[in-house]
Amino acid sequence: MSGGVVLFGTGSPILVDVEESLHRAGLVPAAGIRNRPGACHLSQEIRAVTAQEAGPELTALPFLVPLFTPAHRQIAAREARALGFTTPFTLIDPSTPAPRRLEIEEGGYVNAGCTLGGGSRIGAFVFLNRGASLGHHARLGAFVSIGPGVTIAGHVTLGDGVVVGTGAVILPEVTIGANAVIGAGSVVTKDVPAGCLALGHPARVVREGIGGYHGLAVDPSGA
Amino acid sequence: MSGGVVLFGTGSPILVDVEESLHRAGLVPAAGIRNRPGACHLSQEIRAVTAQEAGPELTALPFLVPLFTPAHRQIAAREARALGFTTPFTLIDPSTPAPRRLEIEEGGYVNAGCTLGGGSRIGAFVFLNRGASLGHHARLGAFVSIGPGVTIAGHVTLGDGVVVGTGAVILPEVTIGANAVIGAGSVVTKDVPAGCLALGHPARVVREGIGGYHGLAVDPSGA
Amino acid sequence: MSGGVVLFGTGSPILVDVEESLHRAGLVPAAGIRNRPGACHLSQEIRAVTAQEAGPELTALPFLVPLFTPAHRQIAAREARALGFTTPFTLIDPSTPAPRRLEIEEGGYVNAGCTLGGGSRIGAFVFLNRGASLGHHARLGAFVSIGPGVTIAGHVTLGDGVVVGTGAVILPEVTIGANAVIGAGSVVTKDVPAGCLALGHPARVVREGIGGYHGLAVDPSGA
Repeated sequence: MSGGVVLFGTGSPILVDVEESLHRAGLVPAAGIRNRPGACHLSQEIRAVTAQEAGPELTALPFLVPLFTPAHRQIAAREARALGFTTPFTLIDPSTPAPRRLEIEEGGYVNAGCTLGGGSRIGAFVFLNRGASLGHHARLGAFVSIGPGVTIAGHVTLGDGVVVGTGAVILPEVTIGANAVIGAGSVVTKDVPAGCLALGHPARVVREGIGGYHGLAVDPSGA
Repeated sequence: MSGGVVLFGTGSPILVDVEESLHRAGLVPAAGIRNRPGACHLSQEIRAVTAQEAGPELTALPFLVPLFTPAHRQIAAREARALGFTTPFTLIDPSTPAPRRLEIEEGGYVNAGCTLGGGSRIGAFVFLNRGASLGHHARLGAFVSIGPGVTIAGHVTLGDGVVVGTGAVILPEVTIGANAVIGAGSVVTKDVPAGCLALGHPARVVREGIGGYHGLAVDPSGA
Repeated sequence: MSGGVVLFGTGSPILVDVEESLHRAGLVPAAGIRNRPGACHLSQEIRAVTAQEAGPELTALPFLVPLFTPAHRQIAAREARALGFTTPFTLIDPSTPAPRRLEIEEGGYVNAGCTLGGGSRIGAFVFLNRGASLGHHARLGAFVSIGPGVTIAGHVTLGDGVVVGTGAVILPEVTIGANAVIGAGSVVTKDVPAGCLALGHPARVVREGIGGYHGLAVDPSGA
C-alpha cells in the first residue's frame, strides 16, 4: 500500500503486535498519532506525531486504532474522523487464515494465530487477540474485543462493545448483550444480558449495570 | 482431484467450514447429497442432489460426511456406501500442519488451525474442529468428534464415538471410553468410563448410560 | 545446517514432535544421545549413540534437549557441556510465526501452532508445547516449560523452572515465582510465589515448598 497505514493511538503496549502484523502483511506504518500525552509504545523507527501535527498527507491514509478497550477504540476512531481521517483499515494477521465467507466491517484487527469459522459477520472496529478461535456463523457487533486464546463455538452473537477475557469459552448459540464483559477463563453456557459482568465455570452474572469494560460503554450510534 | 469430492449430508451449518477447507486444499466440491429433507446448508454455487439422484458419476468420487454428531456421521457413511460410494475422503485443512508420523484412517476431517502431535493413530471418520490441539501418541477410535479449541495432552485414548466439547482440556494418559461425552470447558484429569457424561473442573461423571452424544451411540461394527 | 542437530536425551516421547519440527525446518537430526539407559524414543532412522560414544564430530554440532521436565533439561544440558558440546540450538517450529521483536536465548524449543506476542524476552532452554499462546512483553526465565494449549496474556513474568500445565490460562501482569507449578486447566488471576503448586479456577496455592516440577528445582546458576 503506497503511503502506508496510520496507527491512531500510541498508548497501548499491544502496538508491538499490531506493528508486527502490519510487517507480516507487507504494509508500512506511516506514522503513529499520539492523541494523548503519556507513555508512547510506538517503535522508535516509526514516526510519532501529535493529533495537531497530522496533516492531509496522513489523514488521506487508512488508519487503524491499536487499543483493546472498546470505548477507547471508539473515542479514538471518532477523533480520527474529526481530524479528517476517512478510511478505517482492517488488518488480519497473515498467520490467521480468513475464510471467503466472512463479512468484516472496516477498522478491525485480527492478531496472529486465530481461526475464523465461515459465514460470520463481524462489525466495525472489532479486535481479536492472539490465538482466538471464532466459530462459524458468529455475529459480532461493533467494537467487540476478544482476548487471547478465547474459543467461541458456532452461532454465537456478541453485542456492541462486548469484551471476552483471556481463554474464555463460549458455547454454541449463546447471545451476549452489548457492553457485557466475560471474565478470563470463564465457560459461558447461556445468554448474558447487556452491561453485565459474568464470571466462572459455568459463568454467572456477578454484577449488573457495569457500563462496559473498564466501566465505559460503547455508544450505540457507532464509530 | 479430477471430478471433485462429494459432500454427503447437507443439514449441518458446519458445511461452511468444510467447503472452505476444500477450497483451501484446491479441491472442488462435486455435489452435496441431500440425504434428508429439511434445511440445506450447502453453498448455492454447489449442486445439491437427493440420494436418489446420485448416479455413478457421483458415487465413483470420494465422499466426505460434514456432520459433527458421531452417530449421524456413521449413519450417513453407511447410507453413502449403500448408494454405491466406496471411497471416503480425508481432509485436513491446509492451515493445520500434519506430521509425517500420523496414521489417520479414511473419512476424517480436520478443520483450520489445529495442531497435531506426532505418533498418533486416528480412526475412521474422526472430526476435529477449529483450533483443536491433539497431543502426541493419541489413540482415537472411529467417529470421534472434537470441539473447537479443545486441548488434548500426550498419550490420550478416546474410544469410538467420543465427543469432547468446546474448549475442554484432557490431561496426559487419560482414557475415555466409547460414546462418552465431555462437557465444554471441562478439565479431565482421570479416566471416564464408556457411555458417561463428564463435566466440570475437574470433570466428574454426572450421568451414566447416556448412549452417546445426543443419546445416540456409535455402532462398534464400524462405518 | 551442514552436519545437523544433535538431540541430547532420548527418553521422552516428545521426541516425535521435536523430530517433526526439525524436519519442517529443513534440518537434519545428526544423532540422538542416549544419556540414560531405559526406553529410547528416537526414530529408528536416526542414529542413537551413548554419551561415551559422542566424539568431536558430534560435540561440534549444535544440540537440543528434548525433555519437558525443567530440571531434567538442565541436568542434560550440563551433561552435554561436560561432554564437550558448546552450542545449544533454538528451534521454533515453522508453523509458529516468530515476531521480529522477540529475544529468545539459546536452547529453546517452540512446538507447532504456537502464537508469540511481541516484545517478549525468553530465557535459555525454554520449552513451549503445541498451540501455546504467549502474550506480548512476557518475561520467561530459564528452563520454563509451557504445556499444550496454554494461554498467557500480556506482561506475564515466569521465573526459572516454572511449569504451566496443559490448557491453563494466565491473566495479564501476573508474576509466577521460580519453580512454581500451575495445574492443568487452571486460571491464574494473581501472583504465585516461588516453589508453590497452584490449581483451580481461580488458581489457589495448594502446596508450598514443592521444590519444583516432579519435586525437582532448577538450579539458579543456569545451564
